[in-house]
Amino acid sequence: MSHNSFGHLFRVTTWGESHGPAIGCVVDGCPPRLALTEADIQPFLDKRRPGQSKFVTQRQEPDQVRILSGVMDGMTTGTPIALVIENTDQRSKDYGEIAERMRPGHADLTYELKYGIRDYRGGGRSSARETAMRVAAGAVARKVLGAGVTVRGALVQMGPDVIDRAAWDWDAVDDNPFFCPDRGAALRWEAMLAEARKSGSSLGAVIEVVAEGAPPGLGAPIYGKLDADLASALMGINAVKGVEIGEGFAAARLAGEENADELRMGPGGEVVFGSNHAGGVLGGISTGQPIVARFAVKPTSSILTPRRSVDRHGNDVDVLTKGRHDPCVGIRAVPVGEAMMALVLADHLLRHRAQNPDAPDRARLPRN
Amino acid sequence: MSHNSFGHLFRVTTWGESHGPAIGCVVDGCPPRLALTEADIQPFLDKRRPGQSKFVTQRQEPDQVRILSGVMDGMTTGTPIALVIENTDQRSKDYGEIAERMRPGHADLTYELKYGIRDYRGGGRSSARETAMRVAAGAVARKVLGAGVTVRGALVQMGPDVIDRAAWDWDAVDDNPFFCPDRGAALRWEAMLAEARKSGSSLGAVIEVVAEGAPPGLGAPIYGKLDADLASALMGINAVKGVEIGEGFAAARLAGEENADELRMGPGGEVVFGSNHAGGVLGGISTGQPIVARFAVKPTSSILTPRRSVDRHGNDVDVLTKGRHDPCVGIRAVPVGEAMMALVLADHLLRHRAQNPDAPDRARLPRN
Amino acid sequence: MSHNSFGHLFRVTTWGESHGPAIGCVVDGCPPRLALTEADIQPFLDKRRPGQSKFVTQRQEPDQVRILSGVMDGMTTGTPIALVIENTDQRSKDYGEIAERMRPGHADLTYELKYGIRDYRGGGRSSARETAMRVAAGAVARKVLGAGVTVRGALVQMGPDVIDRAAWDWDAVDDNPFFCPDRGAALRWEAMLAEARKSGSSLGAVIEVVAEGAPPGLGAPIYGKLDADLASALMGINAVKGVEIGEGFAAARLAGEENADELRMGPGGEVVFGSNHAGGVLGGISTGQPIVARFAVKPTSSILTPRRSVDRHGNDVDVLTKGRHDPCVGIRAVPVGEAMMALVLADHLLRHRAQNPDAPDRARLPRN
Amino acid sequence: MSHNSFGHLFRVTTWGESHGPAIGCVVDGCPPRLALTEADIQPFLDKRRPGQSKFVTQRQEPDQVRILSGVMDGMTTGTPIALVIENTDQRSKDYGEIAERMRPGHADLTYELKYGIRDYRGGGRSSARETAMRVAAGAVARKVLGAGVTVRGALVQMGPDVIDRAAWDWDAVDDNPFFCPDRGAALRWEAMLAEARKSGSSLGAVIEVVAEGAPPGLGAPIYGKLDADLASALMGINAVKGVEIGEGFAAARLAGEENADELRMGPGGEVVFGSNHAGGVLGGISTGQPIVARFAVKPTSSILTPRRSVDRHGNDVDVLTKGRHDPCVGIRAVPVGEAMMALVLADHLLRHRAQNPDAPDRARLPRN
Repeated sequence: MSHNSFGHLFRVTTWGESHGPAIGCVVDGCPPRLALTEADIQPFLDKRRPGQSKFVTQRQEPDQVRILSGVMDGMTTGTPIALVIENTDQRSKDYGEIAERMRPGHADLTYELKYGIRDYRGGGRSSARETAMRVAAGAVARKVLGAGVTVRGALVQMGPDVIDRAAWDWDAVDDNPFFCPDRGAALRWEAMLAEARKSGSSLGAVIEVVAEGAPPGLGAPIYGKLDADLASALMGINAVKGVEIGEGFAAARLAGEENADELRMGPGGEVVFGSNHAGGVLGGISTGQPIVARFAVKPTSSILTPRRSVDRHGNDVDVLTKGRHDPCVGIRAVPVGEAMMALVLADHLLRHRAQNPDAPDRARLPRN
Repeated sequence: MSHNSFGHLFRVTTWGESHGPAIGCVVDGCPPRLALTEADIQPFLDKRRPGQSKFVTQRQEPDQVRILSGVMDGMTTGTPIALVIENTDQRSKDYGEIAERMRPGHADLTYELKYGIRDYRGGGRSSARETAMRVAAGAVARKVLGAGVTVRGALVQMGPDVIDRAAWDWDAVDDNPFFCPDRGAALRWEAMLAEARKSGSSLGAVIEVVAEGAPPGLGAPIYGKLDADLASALMGINAVKGVEIGEGFAAARLAGEENADELRMGPGGEVVFGSNHAGGVLGGISTGQPIVARFAVKPTSSILTPRRSVDRHGNDVDVLTKGRHDPCVGIRAVPVGEAMMALVLADHLLRHRAQNPDAPDRARLPRN
Repeated sequence: MSHNSFGHLFRVTTWGESHGPAIGCVVDGCPPRLALTEADIQPFLDKRRPGQSKFVTQRQEPDQVRILSGVMDGMTTGTPIALVIENTDQRSKDYGEIAERMRPGHADLTYELKYGIRDYRGGGRSSARETAMRVAAGAVARKVLGAGVTVRGALVQMGPDVIDRAAWDWDAVDDNPFFCPDRGAALRWEAMLAEARKSGSSLGAVIEVVAEGAPPGLGAPIYGKLDADLASALMGINAVKGVEIGEGFAAARLAGEENADELRMGPGGEVVFGSNHAGGVLGGISTGQPIVARFAVKPTSSILTPRRSVDRHGNDVDVLTKGRHDPCVGIRAVPVGEAMMALVLADHLLRHRAQNPDAPDRARLPRN
Repeated sequence: MSHNSFGHLFRVTTWGESHGPAIGCVVDGCPPRLALTEADIQPFLDKRRPGQSKFVTQRQEPDQVRILSGVMDGMTTGTPIALVIENTDQRSKDYGEIAERMRPGHADLTYELKYGIRDYRGGGRSSARETAMRVAAGAVARKVLGAGVTVRGALVQMGPDVIDRAAWDWDAVDDNPFFCPDRGAALRWEAMLAEARKSGSSLGAVIEVVAEGAPPGLGAPIYGKLDADLASALMGINAVKGVEIGEGFAAARLAGEENADELRMGPGGEVVFGSNHAGGVLGGISTGQPIVARFAVKPTSSILTPRRSVDRHGNDVDVLTKGRHDPCVGIRAVPVGEAMMALVLADHLLRHRAQNPDAPDRARLPRN
């Protein structure tokens, strides 16, 4: 029940503060004899890395990951995999002012109230910098899932502007700085974000993550349901305020006959669904369909507009957050959301085969 | 990491199938010397109980809870509290037909694929009947939280019809069969639900749960965040497809300066918030404000309209679900949502005081 | 991290007090489609049951186990298995006197200090009666291990009298009321125990438990070592004060070349050990050899000889424990020790195959 | 249920191999605002460090610990504390020969069978080098326990030679290279060990660890008993084959009236025990008396005497372990045993106060 660990059998423990010497994680329970080197992890970190476009924080860090244990000759050994990233561009002076002040919308006040002390340098432990280790661990999780499972994410809404789903093109996602699958929306967002930055404001976002190729049977009812674990994984990302599976909140507006996905036998004995309102999860267990989750990210709380607040001595103050901040933190949450999905699936894959070693990896009937 | 346990220090393990001899739970980690009798639990079960209005399943069961351990002379002893409810109205014959068929929108297929066997009687383990034990355990959790913390829920949307928040009246909630805080909406819903039932359809719903009086400091970053645990708790309720904290998905549409709640010192050294977009949680830790969560329940999958499906032998079939079912399962999810909120808070209260025994129970500054 | 749960993937949660209405447990994580009925469990309970010979407590209870969930048509379904035993012979009046007094050597004082309340009726939760549920759960664990794995225990020392290992005969174990594998020792013990009873005294014992047929690879270094988990499992049995694996404390007296078991390839590619000082565990992982553990049980603290003590109000008193007690609680600890061994192995079997699904079930080399 | 984590609320996750770039650990759940610097940890590492006398391995490493997170300005912040030690003296060539061969008495074979791969360099993960991180984490645990609790260990037996308890002098422990509390025994052991080394043999040992000043109430029955957790903690140390609490195996030889510790009220309302056969634990809960545990360490398996074995290809071979090894690994197990005791106590202290925040810190009656 470690506060800073995620997962059960495939388990990640992260550590580190935004402005400490390094951040890192321990990935425990990884199956042995998986090919793994830093080169398997680095591309995902590069995707999340700050400083890559004018739309994200200009903090410049290579975020170079090192594997310190658990791998020999490019193969996992089954022992804990320690990953570490040095913090190289900390600019502590940028943050000196906030040592005493509680930034509205941030965790400053709650850390202060809970612990009576907080590492104010760059947000300390509450900084989104911690999510770099989620991304690194997620890359290992992808190895556990194998090449047959793909986990991809995209930004489907920025501020109030929602993409046109008819225009969805996965190839577009890597062609714009927003991970946006709709090229038209991406153009609009560029202007929106420039305006938000200029006015010292910030924007929220909605991210969709989709896993394809995952076997049916993942998820352990009643209190280890796949969707419940996904909800926890995604809600736990910094600044997230809502999570949906499949149809999500829109399901509440549908009639029963519209929402329940119909079934038919496909060729080869595999069950085929007529739709996927369920988002690939029924009764907390994966169906074999794509697993679809969405999460809402609030607008960055670090803004240039002055806001009323208090300091740690109990005085009223005004806070204006300078420093290098993303005007839409939702953008860089895309690779983080993917990583959390991968982590949840890898953990459940191990849990599932522990109890059900002979379960089918496709939705075939009859079962035996 | 038990599949059927919830919580860490205040921990509930449930067991039982819809049509087995009984359902039950074990509440472990409860502090000693709390006054507790069946009378503290029964009212919450009565609220969730089927058969109370024409809008919920007509299954008639007293759902009488018994305490089998962990309590002596009306006081908890610190040892595990076993709670049990006999199943008395099972009517197994109602369900005989579904032994072979997969009901669309239900867990039939996924249990079959995962386990290669399923208890088809009334949905077995996947039945919402399991939630009775959540409600029972939630009543114990309320004892742990104490009288200063209230946890209340309400239905804020049925099908596409959303309440008028300006008309919110907590007193109205117990005056209508929908736990609706808006008397006007309750009248509309009565007609809507009658129509849905008549047409063999069903409706979804959105429930809001609010905890007031909880201390700041609850929640353990990074992977034991209060909001992440709430998301897991609520998403894990049967038929839930979405969870929000505070502003939720709407936060994505706000500008940063609109969304971040401002702070000021109140009289007596307590921090006062100007708004509660955050829903009482910042950085995964409670602020001391009301903790606000919402969750979306899909429309009941058990409907009288025939739907295409398959049987366990791999044949195409049509399924029409007779039996006694709620046309809107969201209604009875209200006390369940309250219970899950109470369970999460009780667990975090114990976790918090383990690590931070001298933390303040109100948002006071300076901290020391 | 539930206080009253044991195991991780194969996980047992027990509840109940000696003199409450019932005791029970929930077995979670059991693989589906294992044949299981009460008849698979009852024989192990009968072996542990009180009242069977004059050498154990004369409390008369049938200890009839009932399965309340998790099994359909004689097959496990993968959902939690609830087991319950009614308490039928409680004679509360026997124990009334100890409500206020702390029995030396018992948990009375520590429960009082920890919880500020204790269920004094028959020892409440601290009574060895709880071990009946370990035995019941252990019977389910044996199903998980399969017929190829046998787990057997025997009493190898009573008081200061140690068996002659050269006379070890497993068939003898069921022929005497002491589970003694040495018929000669069994005769001596009969007299010893009669004498102890007559003089109002009691005797300690050492039990040995042996598992044969378990695959290599069980155990998860560093903090889920098989021997560490066995140590916890056995030390956690009531009245146990010491645990050994293989050579145990005697290993400290051996030279390195005597203690390390030599290896040779056997016919068919299986590794053969020249000895088993290790007790079947190296580096926390099973070798495929018999797994051998021993544990020491202190003499029953409930004796007729008056002893100095205190009451809960802080007064000096003398305590003399009447009631029905085993003069050597170690005897009935034999089936309990077997059960704990089976539980540890079943849990590790699931854990092992989660991470290493293609590991061999015999000690074959080369591995691939 | 991480394989490489220890503890629940005060939780340590270790990583690293003997000959990798570094070893490390993450200490999670540590209360905030404890003074902590590297200087608090280093002395315990120095005590365990190799190369300090001719009686331990001549591997020369400074074992300099660094704190990478969780501490600001010399104070813990409540966030995870990452500790790391660089491996500086690895001499991989020493170990090249064992890449293919299974050293008898070592974990080589079992890692090979479990994982199908093993890091053979210096024993990889199974090396006792991992225990350095236990010692480091144990130093943090001592901070949690506070100055009022002392945890000390001593070697009480080397090979077959047992100390004279009447000669016990804690001050002697640091005066000889064996952590021996009996100066006479220390002299004998010097000769014994020189002889063992000369003959290419090795010796076992028994270590005793004593915690004084710990409050009553630590330990959570039934499956989180203090003695069960101590047994797991100590049995999990490399090469340990037996664990005892208090009287241990000798308790089996005592009569009930000899073994049960009598009680009397002391001045000031504190319960006083007439003896401590129980080793400070009754019913799995601490009594407030000194907590006494012993564990047996087998003789080093790495010896110069050739032994029969197999290689990973299934060939019979002879193995003779050169390299730098301790002729008695039990010596350096003393600080490790202390650390494990401290870790168990710190974890239980947090667990206890979570459930029982108002329990007394001394064995006072009446309780309220």
